[in-house]
Amino acid sequence: MVVALDVGGTGMKCALVRPDGTSVHTERHHTRAERGPAAVVASILDIAEGLADKARADGLTPLAVGVAVPGVVDESTGTAAWSANLGFRDVPLRELVGTRLGLPTALGHDVRVGGIAEARLGAGRDTRHVLFVAIGTGIAAAHVVAGAAAAGAHGAAGELGHIVVRPDGPRCGCGGHGCLEAVASAASVGRRYTTLTGTPATAAEVVSRAADGEEAAGQVWRETIDALADGLAIAQALYDTEVVVLGGGLAEAGTGLLDPLGVALRRRLTFQTEPRLVRAALGDEAGCLGAALLALDRLPVP
Amino acid sequence: MVVALDVGGTGMKCALVRPDGTSVHTERHHTRAERGPAAVVASILDIAEGLADKARADGLTPLAVGVAVPGVVDESTGTAAWSANLGFRDVPLRELVGTRLGLPTALGHDVRVGGIAEARLGAGRDTRHVLFVAIGTGIAAAHVVAGAAAAGAHGAAGELGHIVVRPDGPRCGCGGHGCLEAVASAASVGRRYTTLTGTPATAAEVVSRAADGEEAAGQVWRETIDALADGLAIAQALYDTEVVVLGGGLAEAGTGLLDPLGVALRRRLTFQTEPRLVRAALGDEAGCLGAALLALDRLPVP
Repeated sequence: MVVALDVGGTGMKCALVRPDGTSVHTERHHTRAERGPAAVVASILDIAEGLADKARADGLTPLAVGVAVPGVVDESTGTAAWSANLGFRDVPLRELVGTRLGLPTALGHDVRVGGIAEARLGAGRDTRHVLFVAIGTGIAAAHVVAGAAAAGAHGAAGELGHIVVRPDGPRCGCGGHGCLEAVASAASVGRRYTTLTGTPATAAEVVSRAADGEEAAGQVWRETIDALADGLAIAQALYDTEVVVLGGGLAEAGTGLLDPLGVALRRRLTFQTEPRLVRAALGDEAGCLGAALLALDRLPVP
Repeated sequence: MVVALDVGGTGMKCALVRPDGTSVHTERHHTRAERGPAAVVASILDIAEGLADKARADGLTPLAVGVAVPGVVDESTGTAAWSANLGFRDVPLRELVGTRLGLPTALGHDVRVGGIAEARLGAGRDTRHVLFVAIGTGIAAAHVVAGAAAAGAHGAAGELGHIVVRPDGPRCGCGGHGCLEAVASAASVGRRYTTLTGTPATAAEVVSRAADGEEAAGQVWRETIDALADGLAIAQALYDTEVVVLGGGLAEAGTGLLDPLGVALRRRLTFQTEPRLVRAALGDEAGCLGAALLALDRLPVP
């Protein structure tokens, strides 16, 4: 049994997970990031300890802890190096959790562990080369080969959301212009529709209105698909994966996203082999399950 | 002692290489690709056998063979899947060489094995996360982590030359438009200068004229640097490496390439860590040395 926490900007998904990847207990908590990073860290420690205690009270033995956080994460040192949402700057979270609980602890990046979970247990199962792309408030990717996600030299690999696809495009939260995230994230889709029409709408509403034939929504959605296809064509040229697993809020559009995106991607590839595009299978549990898998990886093979 | 061959579109670099990476004998041959793929394969087999015989005649024992070829290479099956220069289509080169010489044989991709050589023995030595970028007739890259190059699911990872950086740019040999290779390869630099001025020139001449203050050459070179910086910024977002090793003909420009490219790349990065840009150390021996390293990797650890 391992303790798993996926700490997001708004909520924490937590679970006690068996070695086979099934959860025996789940909890959700508000992150309340506005309290500042120290308070968020204190909550993480309390919740993790509470989960371990709960396991023991139920006659189970917690063997390890896995924690996933967003931002720039250095898995090798166990440090949450930087996170816009949580205000983290070089927080030695692996050591803090490990010391508090007295258990082997792994720290991972939320999208990379989500990718690990989708690759091992979800939509990428039985596939060696997987690209997991999470399209929500932002856009990030995890390149997973044989069940392991590439972290890069500084914990910042897979930043698909911050490749420039529209040099004259909107300003991005990172300070650049025309990043894929600034054009095609769920947040950007809503924002661009609002700019065009003056009417506030979520990405889901834009997709639905586009399907109903509304012109402005159709235009925003077509531009979104084109930008995403540009990004995926670049990812395929550099990573050459077998399957692209699409997750995050925008993937809720299902075939409304997958079908036109597949057509647009195919049009952009020349000699490259086309990856299969599939929808993520684990929903918003992927990060928590992935944190559990990281923790399980730290245990000796039985 | 291993037998190593780097088969290029115009020439083959061949060597007998010791386990420590030093060559005791080198040979160069013309590929004469115009003879067709079957004749090129026959030459590869003859030359490889000749090298093994030469080793034995000198009292040495050839233990394995490494062959590098351009194009799409499936290292796992040992197949040269596709090569524009050599006309190869699904040539089972590993098996052909292994059967002829009766030795364990490895087949690799020329730029990936070049990257392995630069990462282990050259400019990327002592660095875990290396991106090797070869800028010559074409542009290709190898992402090397801990001395191993990522091949991708279909042997086509690292195709940095075929990411689109100028959607309205010139047609690329791959059938696309505005690929990095179509704008910034050594061949493209010469071609663009010729289009602009009506005067034929090599990339080296363009660089030299730009340094002398010639306006047209300066414009072509600035556009080249900008396109390369766009490509490297994307590679850094997806791979997050520590060092970028620049090889191929265009890297002969030395600081004339590295200095402005470093400035242009820095301007494009926001939160990403800037990789060091360095010039390749092994010159045109990288591919042959890398083929030798692949062969050495197939031997049991002594």
